[in-house]
Amino acid sequence: MSDIQLDDAGRLRHLITTEGLSADLITQILDTAESFVPEIGAPAKKVPLLRGRTVFNLFFENSTRTRTTFELAAKRLSADVINMDVATSSRTKGEDDLDTLFTLQAMGADVFVIRHPENGAAARFAAHAGPGVAIINAGDGSHAHPTQALLDVFTIRRHRPDFDNLSVAIVGDIAHSRVAHSTIHALKTLGTTDIRLVGPTAFLPENPATLGVTATTDITAGLADADIVMGLRIQRERIAGDVLGDIADYHRDFGLTEANLAHAKPDALIMHPGPINRGVEITPEVAYSKQSLILEQVRNGIGIRMAVMALIAGQPAAAEHARTS
Amino acid sequence: MSDIQLDDAGRLRHLITTEGLSADLITQILDTAESFVPEIGAPAKKVPLLRGRTVFNLFFENSTRTRTTFELAAKRLSADVINMDVATSSRTKGEDDLDTLFTLQAMGADVFVIRHPENGAAARFAAHAGPGVAIINAGDGSHAHPTQALLDVFTIRRHRPDFDNLSVAIVGDIAHSRVAHSTIHALKTLGTTDIRLVGPTAFLPENPATLGVTATTDITAGLADADIVMGLRIQRERIAGDVLGDIADYHRDFGLTEANLAHAKPDALIMHPGPINRGVEITPEVAYSKQSLILEQVRNGIGIRMAVMALIAGQPAAAEHARTS
Amino acid sequence: MSDIQLDDAGRLRHLITTEGLSADLITQILDTAESFVPEIGAPAKKVPLLRGRTVFNLFFENSTRTRTTFELAAKRLSADVINMDVATSSRTKGEDDLDTLFTLQAMGADVFVIRHPENGAAARFAAHAGPGVAIINAGDGSHAHPTQALLDVFTIRRHRPDFDNLSVAIVGDIAHSRVAHSTIHALKTLGTTDIRLVGPTAFLPENPATLGVTATTDITAGLADADIVMGLRIQRERIAGDVLGDIADYHRDFGLTEANLAHAKPDALIMHPGPINRGVEITPEVAYSKQSLILEQVRNGIGIRMAVMALIAGQPAAAEHARTS
Repeated sequence: MSDIQLDDAGRLRHLITTEGLSADLITQILDTAESFVPEIGAPAKKVPLLRGRTVFNLFFENSTRTRTTFELAAKRLSADVINMDVATSSRTKGEDDLDTLFTLQAMGADVFVIRHPENGAAARFAAHAGPGVAIINAGDGSHAHPTQALLDVFTIRRHRPDFDNLSVAIVGDIAHSRVAHSTIHALKTLGTTDIRLVGPTAFLPENPATLGVTATTDITAGLADADIVMGLRIQRERIAGDVLGDIADYHRDFGLTEANLAHAKPDALIMHPGPINRGVEITPEVAYSKQSLILEQVRNGIGIRMAVMALIAGQPAAAEHARTS
Repeated sequence: MSDIQLDDAGRLRHLITTEGLSADLITQILDTAESFVPEIGAPAKKVPLLRGRTVFNLFFENSTRTRTTFELAAKRLSADVINMDVATSSRTKGEDDLDTLFTLQAMGADVFVIRHPENGAAARFAAHAGPGVAIINAGDGSHAHPTQALLDVFTIRRHRPDFDNLSVAIVGDIAHSRVAHSTIHALKTLGTTDIRLVGPTAFLPENPATLGVTATTDITAGLADADIVMGLRIQRERIAGDVLGDIADYHRDFGLTEANLAHAKPDALIMHPGPINRGVEITPEVAYSKQSLILEQVRNGIGIRMAVMALIAGQPAAAEHARTS
Repeated sequence: MSDIQLDDAGRLRHLITTEGLSADLITQILDTAESFVPEIGAPAKKVPLLRGRTVFNLFFENSTRTRTTFELAAKRLSADVINMDVATSSRTKGEDDLDTLFTLQAMGADVFVIRHPENGAAARFAAHAGPGVAIINAGDGSHAHPTQALLDVFTIRRHRPDFDNLSVAIVGDIAHSRVAHSTIHALKTLGTTDIRLVGPTAFLPENPATLGVTATTDITAGLADADIVMGLRIQRERIAGDVLGDIADYHRDFGLTEANLAHAKPDALIMHPGPINRGVEITPEVAYSKQSLILEQVRNGIGIRMAVMALIAGQPAAAEHARTS
């Protein structure tokens, strides 16, 4: 899976998954993002790196929030951005995904940001993308969401740069989460070995050992002395649908509450990919506490997406693509 | 309500309502707008005052037309604009309004243009907005619609600058109209004392005297010698639903028709916030007559919105926010 | 119909239909488009010809793909672009089309790209457009789709510039196709006399001779020695609804398949306005063959739309409009 992401010189060409990305490449992305994240209170940075380039937000699944982060990142790189919600348009006429890709490429697309309900969709697009056209995965099924993983490790690095000696607890619906999969890969590549998955049995993967992590249904053990506690977004339906019991029980047993967090390190940092469900997987007091990095994750997410697009399609890269294609 | 709109130096920081805005501040906005409204036939003005700034059109209630006026105004100030229709996106996942505000702020929003079905929503956002982040109310429930009021008084000032000696008749569904409330406050602040509300009883406020205006169900008396006749948009459902009788009766009794307008001054000017319902509250002949200012209101509305955003978030202001936050 | 499209000096003022456009004017548009179409593999061209101008994509009928081509073309000319889907917004409040036109003109619109379900809608808008405001028809009912026709003849000219000695077969639902009507007019104006319409009886126009073309239900005769074979998009419903039989039969009898194309010239070029229905009017093998110009049509379509907008509303033209209005 990883080779499709690199060009012949080993540089990033597409971003499909964090799986297989080297520590050097991840570090290059994080370092690049540092230059795009403004100081707290400072205005956002606007640069001309993608001026004249065209970014398509091609969403086969609705996600206003994720689309907005990519739209903003592309605009701050001075790209022209086209939002296309395919679910409600040409797709209903029967045009299939690859015809859409080929057609939009012919319009002069440089970057596709793709959100798709099927696992592996982004890789399929990348396999068929023309020269000089980049695919960025904005979430495909339960497979991967690499920019979320990169902003997670970026945010962690700013506060706890010693990845080797980090304890990370991921709490919630890990089995269905593309975020969890991508973040676990990125953390392990950067050297983190102590990763614990915490949740009810139905939310835990069947073979955590193959992922190189541990899993537990006991939040006391799972959070013990953790440096980082990452909550995941929970679909209310999953809980209310008699699978897991009721929401209050889930909140008590697995919610990021002050009571549960007492087991983690006193200075443990709280993360969540957002948007939060107050009273389900987290309390608002925890979400907006001083130890919460949740809003910082959002801020950093714009910088990460700018960095990925700039590395792949910034002017020198684009010029080179034009020269060689 | 008004103090939240000003910063410590008394300058405009948010725009929530015309209520409490001083005559000086309103005049400053109108004077600023003069520089943004093009001559008839001249191309629109494009200026770099908000280059690099990000404006979110955050609409919790659908209004393509109002959204478009703000989108255009922001683009003509060279801002990056993101349209978010919250009703159909993250809101359905349960994220509440303030979480949305905090999240979008973290993305680097400078200005939020907010349309919301609840009275007081814009003030609530302003109370929680971070340093350097401005809230502009684009209509909250039946409470206020201040940019519409400002474009109304701007348009009047260009033709009848002597506010002290002006007779203004507002005709239609005043009780449910945020436009009427905001415009009445702006007119009174600028010195107009003769404001008459005209409509069937169900459309009139209960205590017009507390607003400092008069009210009547008799259009002959209401329009007598008026300088300005402002029609309001009527929801057909309100009339057809047996509350008020049928549409033809309403049109005859309260429509801006040539017959009814014969009671106003011969050179009375006609206004309407648009879009008009032909044959309900106005005839097309009146709407497009030489005395109609309706399309001029639209043109001026872009300039007013540019002025408000430039005053609040234009480059010097933004730089200062960054320095002090 | 054609005179409304030209200004007093005979220059293009609106683009409503190819009917009545002179060969010189069509050639001017095609020559202008040459400068906007990038080399294969080269990045798209971005120019400042419409900087500060406002383009409204005013779609009374949903068409993400057509809207996108105009949005991209306008952005590459550096215009500000506003997308308005009228079917789902102010129209439902009862505001009629002309009120919408007048209102958006007052906001400072320079160009309206209009897609509308009714034949003749674009001409109606043009008849009421103010000075300096241009209407571009992006498809009105089954009447016309002139930019599609222009990109068709542009694409043909690049490969088979001798229009006088060209054999063109148009296959599919010609009777309901605005594309076919517009392309036939453009081809005939440029000198092509051998145009054959091919399809089942229900898809053929009643009087092909009045269009100066021939019609046949026999694909063998229709494609015989054709230089160009243009497929049209077929609505599945039309076939499946017992009007024409089943899809497999249609595909066999009228599809652009290798078997059917054996009757055309060996180097015949394949065209289709897209999006294709695989297995209905075309096979993917034919659509993506070396003789297919389908993706080149898409690429050229951006250049044609840039050319039309630049010719009508580019800076010198706009300056002149301002001076004379």
